Amino acid sequence: MARLKGFQKLTSINDALKTWFDLLKINRCSIKRIPLSEAFGRVLAEDVFAGEDIPRFNRSAVDGYALRSENTEGTSQFDPTVFKITEAEEIALNQTRQVWTGNPIPQGANAVVMLEYTKEREGKIEVGVKLAWGKNVSRKGEDIRKGEIAAKAGTRLNPFHLGLLATLGIMEVEVVEKPKIGILATGDELVEVGEKLSGNQIFETNRIVLSNLCRELGAIPWNLGIEKDDVKAISEKLRAGLEKADGVITSGGTSVGGLDLVPEAVNNLGSPGVVVHGIAMRPGMPTALAVLQEKPVLVLSGNPVASVIGFEVFARPLIGKMLGVKTEVSRTLVRAVMTKKVIAALGRKTFVRVKVVRKNAEFLAHPVSARGSGAISTMTRGNGFVIVPENREGLLEGEIVLVRVFGDLEVLS
Amino acid sequence: MARLKGFQKLTSINDALKTWFDLLKINRCSIKRIPLSEAFGRVLAEDVFAGEDIPRFNRSAVDGYALRSENTEGTSQFDPTVFKITEAEEIALNQTRQVWTGNPIPQGANAVVMLEYTKEREGKIEVGVKLAWGKNVSRKGEDIRKGEIAAKAGTRLNPFHLGLLATLGIMEVEVVEKPKIGILATGDELVEVGEKLSGNQIFETNRIVLSNLCRELGAIPWNLGIEKDDVKAISEKLRAGLEKADGVITSGGTSVGGLDLVPEAVNNLGSPGVVVHGIAMRPGMPTALAVLQEKPVLVLSGNPVASVIGFEVFARPLIGKMLGVKTEVSRTLVRAVMTKKVIAALGRKTFVRVKVVRKNAEFLAHPVSARGSGAISTMTRGNGFVIVPENREGLLEGEIVLVRVFGDLEVLS
Repeated sequence: MARLKGFQKLTSINDALKTWFDLLKINRCSIKRIPLSEAFGRVLAEDVFAGEDIPRFNRSAVDGYALRSENTEGTSQFDPTVFKITEAEEIALNQTRQVWTGNPIPQGANAVVMLEYTKEREGKIEVGVKLAWGKNVSRKGEDIRKGEIAAKAGTRLNPFHLGLLATLGIMEVEVVEKPKIGILATGDELVEVGEKLSGNQIFETNRIVLSNLCRELGAIPWNLGIEKDDVKAISEKLRAGLEKADGVITSGGTSVGGLDLVPEAVNNLGSPGVVVHGIAMRPGMPTALAVLQEKPVLVLSGNPVASVIGFEVFARPLIGKMLGVKTEVSRTLVRAVMTKKVIAALGRKTFVRVKVVRKNAEFLAHPVSARGSGAISTMTRGNGFVIVPENREGLLEGEIVLVRVFGDLEVLS
Repeated sequence: MARLKGFQKLTSINDALKTWFDLLKINRCSIKRIPLSEAFGRVLAEDVFAGEDIPRFNRSAVDGYALRSENTEGTSQFDPTVFKITEAEEIALNQTRQVWTGNPIPQGANAVVMLEYTKEREGKIEVGVKLAWGKNVSRKGEDIRKGEIAAKAGTRLNPFHLGLLATLGIMEVEVVEKPKIGILATGDELVEVGEKLSGNQIFETNRIVLSNLCRELGAIPWNLGIEKDDVKAISEKLRAGLEKADGVITSGGTSVGGLDLVPEAVNNLGSPGVVVHGIAMRPGMPTALAVLQEKPVLVLSGNPVASVIGFEVFARPLIGKMLGVKTEVSRTLVRAVMTKKVIAALGRKTFVRVKVVRKNAEFLAHPVSARGSGAISTMTRGNGFVIVPENREGLLEGEIVLVRVFGDLEVLS
């Protein structure tokens, strides 16, 4: 009566990932040159360096008057200094020239006094403040210097990266192609959403979830349909999927108790086939990792939550690797206080779904009730999860945890 | 020599937003029915209720044997109970029937023992554990009950919402149309990225940043081009933009020192025109809010960082309102420790850019150096900002702050 009849041993998440990735010899997807205007959210394939100093010249950061700062030594509101306004290219002592924000600083000048601090009278201005050298001047290269790195390979380009690259006059960038991921659902009981249900049938819902998780990460999902619990038919779908996709994700048919169809269907297609089956995690224990034609096959449980957690743990770093991005940075982490204790299983990483709310500067993590723990509604009622390590039997009330956030945070007032 | 010659008084962010929104009488954009498969990231326009219980029937959560839990009273590993395997529709005492995950629970049964905890022998199984009522049974309606709300109007649909709606057999949803936002850059010194620069010319980069900030929030940006510092020409562009867009954002020409062109161009088009000009914030003080034909016009500074902060403060809640989403939830907040003190101006909200890194369970916020403070590179070197309130002269080293995160977090090892 061993607990884990089907799995001789469970593999830790880290060991499983290492085994899988080592065999995959994943190289980043191919690269593509695209206009900067279409690069939002794409992953940069090359380091981009500044081709010149930005700003290109010393320029005024404000509307005001350019002058020599040493001229304002001893100046105060009660003892203002008077400057003669000039249009000359070079500013001498006691001279000044009007500049607008962004204008080049005239030769000789080294500071700008804001318009608001001056009084103009008959071609002269009175300045009542002492100015430091460089005050209100944006110096050539202070933003970014020629040869400095503007954005690193592997950066997922946000609007600000695009702005910086545009500032450098860059119109096109090399980005990583989006990996194409085939997604197959298996199970006799599954029917397409909206069709008529009978007996023990249920709607197939894992594909829409997994497809959009792929989209969110910058991969292109490819719907391989629903297949019956038939090893030969599943093999055929997998073969066809791997021909055109960079990887395939399946859901269903992984449990070792009853039917263990997908791992068998994978192994029928060649070696090495399934390289890990049975992970020390909960949910998602029956997840299997496979390699065929050096391409990844991720065999997820049919349980909606287990398949999501399996995706999180294995597909997320996989797609990150295919895109060349770091994986550690992909979910926002929030430090929160557990509001209730949670029980977990020793020897596995347990993924506890929580709802994080903010109360002033404090974040509270409420465990999402165990009601329907295998149900996707625990992912919509919650907005993050906490990982309980293998060597812990749970989380304490009041314990500080790091929550991986996947939904909007609510604010308590 | 008043500090704020141009602005008689600065308006607080909250007052400015209230004045603007009151005059806009913004109603949510119109709604549209779309297939669930295209609804990722869209904002739900209607509350969606469960039309039936999920699960639709009591079903097994595991592979195993369905039985009556009362039959396992007193059962232990050393004193197992024996059950006769049956295929009957109803389970009597001392009977059991094999079920796979997802199968309906037979009449009479109220718990399922996992396959791993049983031994089969000649049409009988031995069970060595005591089972509680309902063990390993997913009860009808435990996930979501008929009539319960599945997703609220105003929800930005993530993959899990789509999964839950699919589980309910929903194939189409009503979503809010994406607001169309015209984006105009103004300034004699601006040229399109990639063209030849001469004199004090610079590349126009605010449109690509603002456009993609719009996209990120689910609005459709519409490029209205670059306009010279010419009031009449700017008015004409604004008029054309407002004809087809739901709102217009401009950058440049807001400063009161030198040229104050855009507010003038706005006011030439009708009333109320500019309703707030000069905000108690830094950067972004010369931002103006306007209303024309009951549509919003957001007049941002030309400074790259000031325009981004102005967008953050005003366009973000505006687009949220147009979409019908809550604004408070739109940036992830991270509680972090300031690693250095920062000086800010009394009487204004100061937006300090920081780089947040995680070190184990601790988040550290490093202020991004003041070097090039108006430069977009402060937004790529940083990944969040901290708001210093009006009544504070800065932030202390070691102070705990809430960071609004706009970029990936790095992890220190």
